[in-house]
Amino acid sequence: MVEDELLYHEAAIHRRRSSIITTWDTPVAVSTETITDCFVHQLLDGHRKPTDSSPKHFIHHSAIPEDTVMSDKSGEYFHSHAEHSQSRLLSKKQLSDMAFNIRELSKTLSHMKLKLKVQNIFILGKIHDTTVVQLSRTLAEWLLAKNRHYRVYVEDTLEDNSEFDAKSLLAIDPSYERRLKYWDTQLCAKAPQIFDVVIALGGDGTVLYASWLFQRIVPPVLSFAMGSLGFLTKFDFANHQDILTETFDQGFNVNLRVRFEATVMRHVDNGDCVANDVIEEIIGSGAEQVTHNPERDHHILNEVVVDRGPNGTMITLEVFGDNEHFTTVQADGICVATPTGSTAYNLAAGGSLCHPDNPVVLLTAICAHTLSFRPIILPDSIVLRLAVPYDARTNAWASFDGKERVELRAGDYVTISASRFPFPSVLPLEQNTENWIDSISRTLNWNSRQRQKAFNPDAKS
Amino acid sequence: MVEDELLYHEAAIHRRRSSIITTWDTPVAVSTETITDCFVHQLLDGHRKPTDSSPKHFIHHSAIPEDTVMSDKSGEYFHSHAEHSQSRLLSKKQLSDMAFNIRELSKTLSHMKLKLKVQNIFILGKIHDTTVVQLSRTLAEWLLAKNRHYRVYVEDTLEDNSEFDAKSLLAIDPSYERRLKYWDTQLCAKAPQIFDVVIALGGDGTVLYASWLFQRIVPPVLSFAMGSLGFLTKFDFANHQDILTETFDQGFNVNLRVRFEATVMRHVDNGDCVANDVIEEIIGSGAEQVTHNPERDHHILNEVVVDRGPNGTMITLEVFGDNEHFTTVQADGICVATPTGSTAYNLAAGGSLCHPDNPVVLLTAICAHTLSFRPIILPDSIVLRLAVPYDARTNAWASFDGKERVELRAGDYVTISASRFPFPSVLPLEQNTENWIDSISRTLNWNSRQRQKAFNPDAKS
Amino acid sequence: MVEDELLYHEAAIHRRRSSIITTWDTPVAVSTETITDCFVHQLLDGHRKPTDSSPKHFIHHSAIPEDTVMSDKSGEYFHSHAEHSQSRLLSKKQLSDMAFNIRELSKTLSHMKLKLKVQNIFILGKIHDTTVVQLSRTLAEWLLAKNRHYRVYVEDTLEDNSEFDAKSLLAIDPSYERRLKYWDTQLCAKAPQIFDVVIALGGDGTVLYASWLFQRIVPPVLSFAMGSLGFLTKFDFANHQDILTETFDQGFNVNLRVRFEATVMRHVDNGDCVANDVIEEIIGSGAEQVTHNPERDHHILNEVVVDRGPNGTMITLEVFGDNEHFTTVQADGICVATPTGSTAYNLAAGGSLCHPDNPVVLLTAICAHTLSFRPIILPDSIVLRLAVPYDARTNAWASFDGKERVELRAGDYVTISASRFPFPSVLPLEQNTENWIDSISRTLNWNSRQRQKAFNPDAKS
Amino acid sequence: MVEDELLYHEAAIHRRRSSIITTWDTPVAVSTETITDCFVHQLLDGHRKPTDSSPKHFIHHSAIPEDTVMSDKSGEYFHSHAEHSQSRLLSKKQLSDMAFNIRELSKTLSHMKLKLKVQNIFILGKIHDTTVVQLSRTLAEWLLAKNRHYRVYVEDTLEDNSEFDAKSLLAIDPSYERRLKYWDTQLCAKAPQIFDVVIALGGDGTVLYASWLFQRIVPPVLSFAMGSLGFLTKFDFANHQDILTETFDQGFNVNLRVRFEATVMRHVDNGDCVANDVIEEIIGSGAEQVTHNPERDHHILNEVVVDRGPNGTMITLEVFGDNEHFTTVQADGICVATPTGSTAYNLAAGGSLCHPDNPVVLLTAICAHTLSFRPIILPDSIVLRLAVPYDARTNAWASFDGKERVELRAGDYVTISASRFPFPSVLPLEQNTENWIDSISRTLNWNSRQRQKAFNPDAKS
Repeated sequence: MVEDELLYHEAAIHRRRSSIITTWDTPVAVSTETITDCFVHQLLDGHRKPTDSSPKHFIHHSAIPEDTVMSDKSGEYFHSHAEHSQSRLLSKKQLSDMAFNIRELSKTLSHMKLKLKVQNIFILGKIHDTTVVQLSRTLAEWLLAKNRHYRVYVEDTLEDNSEFDAKSLLAIDPSYERRLKYWDTQLCAKAPQIFDVVIALGGDGTVLYASWLFQRIVPPVLSFAMGSLGFLTKFDFANHQDILTETFDQGFNVNLRVRFEATVMRHVDNGDCVANDVIEEIIGSGAEQVTHNPERDHHILNEVVVDRGPNGTMITLEVFGDNEHFTTVQADGICVATPTGSTAYNLAAGGSLCHPDNPVVLLTAICAHTLSFRPIILPDSIVLRLAVPYDARTNAWASFDGKERVELRAGDYVTISASRFPFPSVLPLEQNTENWIDSISRTLNWNSRQRQKAFNPDAKS
Repeated sequence: MVEDELLYHEAAIHRRRSSIITTWDTPVAVSTETITDCFVHQLLDGHRKPTDSSPKHFIHHSAIPEDTVMSDKSGEYFHSHAEHSQSRLLSKKQLSDMAFNIRELSKTLSHMKLKLKVQNIFILGKIHDTTVVQLSRTLAEWLLAKNRHYRVYVEDTLEDNSEFDAKSLLAIDPSYERRLKYWDTQLCAKAPQIFDVVIALGGDGTVLYASWLFQRIVPPVLSFAMGSLGFLTKFDFANHQDILTETFDQGFNVNLRVRFEATVMRHVDNGDCVANDVIEEIIGSGAEQVTHNPERDHHILNEVVVDRGPNGTMITLEVFGDNEHFTTVQADGICVATPTGSTAYNLAAGGSLCHPDNPVVLLTAICAHTLSFRPIILPDSIVLRLAVPYDARTNAWASFDGKERVELRAGDYVTISASRFPFPSVLPLEQNTENWIDSISRTLNWNSRQRQKAFNPDAKS
Repeated sequence: MVEDELLYHEAAIHRRRSSIITTWDTPVAVSTETITDCFVHQLLDGHRKPTDSSPKHFIHHSAIPEDTVMSDKSGEYFHSHAEHSQSRLLSKKQLSDMAFNIRELSKTLSHMKLKLKVQNIFILGKIHDTTVVQLSRTLAEWLLAKNRHYRVYVEDTLEDNSEFDAKSLLAIDPSYERRLKYWDTQLCAKAPQIFDVVIALGGDGTVLYASWLFQRIVPPVLSFAMGSLGFLTKFDFANHQDILTETFDQGFNVNLRVRFEATVMRHVDNGDCVANDVIEEIIGSGAEQVTHNPERDHHILNEVVVDRGPNGTMITLEVFGDNEHFTTVQADGICVATPTGSTAYNLAAGGSLCHPDNPVVLLTAICAHTLSFRPIILPDSIVLRLAVPYDARTNAWASFDGKERVELRAGDYVTISASRFPFPSVLPLEQNTENWIDSISRTLNWNSRQRQKAFNPDAKS
Repeated sequence: MVEDELLYHEAAIHRRRSSIITTWDTPVAVSTETITDCFVHQLLDGHRKPTDSSPKHFIHHSAIPEDTVMSDKSGEYFHSHAEHSQSRLLSKKQLSDMAFNIRELSKTLSHMKLKLKVQNIFILGKIHDTTVVQLSRTLAEWLLAKNRHYRVYVEDTLEDNSEFDAKSLLAIDPSYERRLKYWDTQLCAKAPQIFDVVIALGGDGTVLYASWLFQRIVPPVLSFAMGSLGFLTKFDFANHQDILTETFDQGFNVNLRVRFEATVMRHVDNGDCVANDVIEEIIGSGAEQVTHNPERDHHILNEVVVDRGPNGTMITLEVFGDNEHFTTVQADGICVATPTGSTAYNLAAGGSLCHPDNPVVLLTAICAHTLSFRPIILPDSIVLRLAVPYDARTNAWASFDGKERVELRAGDYVTISASRFPFPSVLPLEQNTENWIDSISRTLNWNSRQRQKAFNPDAKS
């Protein structure tokens, strides 16, 4: 029985019309030798074998040792090293199962208290913000003093930062020389699993920065707001000592936020003189020919935006869902948001507010030049593709969580699907749900209106 | 030369296709013997004859004596007693000129200080609100004591109201028996010109009530907010003594708000067996036959709403502008708002916010069952008609400033055009414009967002 | 460990603050003796025990015999006869599992061809539409002639309908006397399981009518559009003979649409003189006292609307999600829509368009009188409650799929949660997904715009 | 009496806080020696002196001779050569009167048939569009042949264009050498008054191009659509011979579209070390110091947009109306549209549709990052200023009718007010109004929805 399945064979990826394979019965063989050090994926493996790893297992769960090699075969959709591990290479069913497993794990986690044997602590903050640098110093000093097993990682540029003043810090105790360490983006990319927890200092932007740094495996992120709490910042820095002591000693709740994986696919010039048709290339049934090459993939927490960039005029984009051409959009751009991102750019573009637990993707046009566009909400098991047609007058620009603007030329497209690498956010122990309504009321003034003050006849004559 | 002119001859009003007469060159003869006691219309007459009534005339303008009979012929579009004085009977050019003259007068007034010889003061407030009744008493007592020439009118139901306690008031001074007077809706309708000023106590709702009471001539309305100021309430009652003293002694500014006139036109059953077509009847070129009879006209300050009333399903309405069929709307209803009403129901229905001085009418569908409806803004010289088609499954309901719900059956329609009777609102002397942006920011939280609190590192450990 | 769980004990239902019980560890004992004849629930049982009922089981699945009694214990959340079977009596976890199981079954069904041994065929259509009655006659006659095992059920009012002309139909063959049967709403309520398939003739409204008739178990519904296809009408009546022959002989796909269950909870007057507070009563921690009594539950396919009904002014509603007070809404009303209903009233109220497979609920205000309301999308495992505060100036009205308007007085509320009784919709065999984007483009003109015609210089001089 | 008046003294323009002068009583002396060759302004002068130039004067009005010198003093707000003629230098009253006079003239013109003695004809079209170039040739050839007094101006780049093939055209008749002329942007800027009519070939974009070319005086523009009619293209090229013959022989109607004047004001670095505050500089009461220098002014037909340009993040803008600070907007940008532009970018940004005759300006945020922004509609006598605050993280970009993107740095601002140079658009003779509703229905599918096709039972079995 032939079913709709979206499958990227590794061999097929460069072939014309390759992007859709329609075999439900014979799923592609996926690497069975999987090495994962991911906090989440280990939990996920445990989660998926309830017989031998009861929930109690996690309650006193220790942090993953640096040198552990996991060889469990059940985590087949989650593996960080295999070349063909991108979401866009998964079959429709694998994508759907993967998204589902993350949601299930998230639900399970929300009812569990996790306790980590904390050893390697990662401190993150904007190094151009003097206040944040000072607080990083305060925090590092306190952590190093608190427990002699803690190793504290700060950004490498702080080594010579006068506000941070590493020299005076190292002078406090000889062990600090060994226990104060420096991270750079390379280390985050290569050995994310060594960090037991990330402590983010700043606003929601700093949490987005954590997501950007940890493109695959993400350690649990505990985020302190400097001022008022945001959507992603859950703790008040004013109480950081009590909070960290309690969190490290008694455990915490984790909320997994789904991220999306986005990949720019570059048009390959085959030198043939026939006119190109991007719709035909993406969902057509043409000859077997390489049409596009992938560039690096981005794992994003809020949204992918494809827009007109510096152009003064609107752009035209072809929108595809799985193997279907959805529509042609003429607009300033398109915003494809996660539920987490529904309160960010999606809001500005007119999208609905969406609870972060919903397994959906929000597709909203930015200033569509039509009266009849309305935001649409799709299942997050879909693979979306946004393409620049070959006859486009202007190029488009893709950006990922507001970063890394990439130019898309005629014939290029971006694929977007659920990422296998969710973002674990540490919640206060007493708070196992998101208090989402409270967030949108407090942070966005959702549905607020000035109340008419009642008149007090005694107040004045 | 034939031009588009919308003209209702008195004789033609009941005839089929009567509503449009297309003679630009021969305007209908309008009553030249006009008696007007209207504060506004007198100003307007003065305004339109700059040679014999200079602006200075108004600066020390006295209140209109009760028995003055004006016989100026220039106020031809503004007359309160003639039977054919409805806006819908005016030609397109007359309507346009009338709307324009009100705007011009309004502009002129905004640069003038008006000083009234106050004698008859009208107090208005919700009599079911105990606080308001108490304040009415306080105010009446203070006014009667302040100046022995003041006559104070309160609502007739207060005569026996124990909170108002007229008896104890009359006991204070023998002259009060003669100077405390009672008004009822009849008096407002018949002799509005005797009141020099209306003092409204309450919120914007009380100001709407004043507009409802004075369907034609409206005395200047000075509105006190009980609590926070609104769009129509301009003064804080806490300072009412100072405000009234200053206003009566030194003069005030007046802002004229345009009102709309709306009339329900009832289908006349002619007993002919042909199927009726409301579009044909309203703008068609059929035989001369009576198709509709007018009911009483309503002068409204905020909006006319035609909606589904108690029906569970949407309604269908045919929308006409002058002699054109605009569109067929399937929706919960239609809101036709004045600029003043843009912050009321129009806002809820998704309309734009509109400065009260703009000479426009705002047409917004209420929950249109289409993706492509967008609110439209039309010149206020237009005559709009909203009709229930003969094949409508359900009746519609019209309401006027949220009051007086009237059922519309198949074939009935409502006409809406600018009213000849604007609403004069008293402004603080120092404030000759509306401070409208301030109102929408303060009252509606327009464009407000919670600011991220800055972090104070010294606040706590 | 205490967790957020929403649980209505049968005993607790009338007690004050009863609606929330917070025991995660000791789920309420649910009836273990369950009798279910539901097509869906049998599939669901099979689905949930993969060892003894493989998917192949369904491919040649027979219709459920009239007298079968199922006694499987695994369908614990799905039982039609037990008194305490309402969704609102389920724990938060049970609700969540139930919603999830329906989604999973739906996903499984989308990959299966179902074949029914059709015997009892239910014909549904608006009996006031002459065309539909004529087509019902045509269809009944064709079905009775096609297969001598078919029994055809038509609405009882057709027995004496001259357009249907039952007499001439019965005259064709003696067996028709026995095989042409009549249904009424009683039969639909009491013995829905006897119908193998419902054939709906008409538009989306007729499908809503099927949902209303079958409030609990719903037979598979095959819907013919009379004209253009809609969101719920999947087949063109012009080809009905081919379609029915193929469907009955070769099988079909089924799509399960989630429905919501809504119950009006009536304030109980306890005669105590303290002022009532509906927020306190619903989520407070007060004394054990009966505060509300449930009325009958409604299973809806599109939306629950609570609005101002015939009132001319907006209403105030308190909105609760699980055990949290979300917000106070001042608006014309609130629309709580299923994903299926996103293209109905939700669209008119400004909500996003939502793919029917998303496990979410759409909460949208109708003409909110604030600038800062934005539609929100919540997980469908939530229990929503919309309450009229005790100090409300006006009553509210609840309606269910646009039907059965019920007045809500001060203190009353409506609960809304996912229903255990989904709506099985028959899809064309070749179409196992919804073609949803195609539906919104075709039916709503989503994102459409008039293309500028190219100029043809040869067309005319 | 001091009144709100917005007045830019020429001497005051560079001074700190200079932009607002508050003298109602002593209006600034404006150049009384005015030379105007503007078609519109001559009409306007006539219009404003009804005694000596009756409306009939215009009905057989001839084109303005090239060498006429007008020396009427009444056109004081309309003068093309005086250096201080910018709108932003007018007082509030002058601005208001100027806007009003244009509206009045426009109204008068709509009832008049204008007849020009056509001599110099300007042909405009996109020279990169081969079809347009071919049609330009066709048109030029036909015009030159039609009347030996016609001089035809085409764009100078067509001189060597092989599609236009000037050589073969000149070979037709010796007089063509003298009568076929070439224009460039310089000529449009310096001697716009020599052209009797502009014939635009293309879409609405070509009409915008005409507005850009003629920044001050605009000849009457007759626009042919190549395909479907747009908002600004009123004639079908397929019938161009009949249309032009009739228009030149019998006369035409003209509709005046209001344009806006926008000027970039550049921050002047005074080298003082105090922190700058753009709000203080624009409306504050500081010392007399030059804070900003004007750059060239732009006269726009659709809209001024200030947006984030190539930035990935939103910008912050301070919005001022006359001498008031309205609000701080955080958004992708702000669109300030004329009524004509309401169907262009304003529509995409969510603004209402606005009849082109309304004397208003539409201010709409582009993707505001707040829930409570709503588009606002202001009188077109306002002076708007959009400023980049000094602490802005990113620069902004201004664009004018989608052209000429200009970067705004911290402290810069843009002023926007009604232009003294309206855009005269030629309408078909029989059509003296805009048929605006028809345009939005046809071009934007306003309020359109697919009608359910009725079922035809006889169509098929």
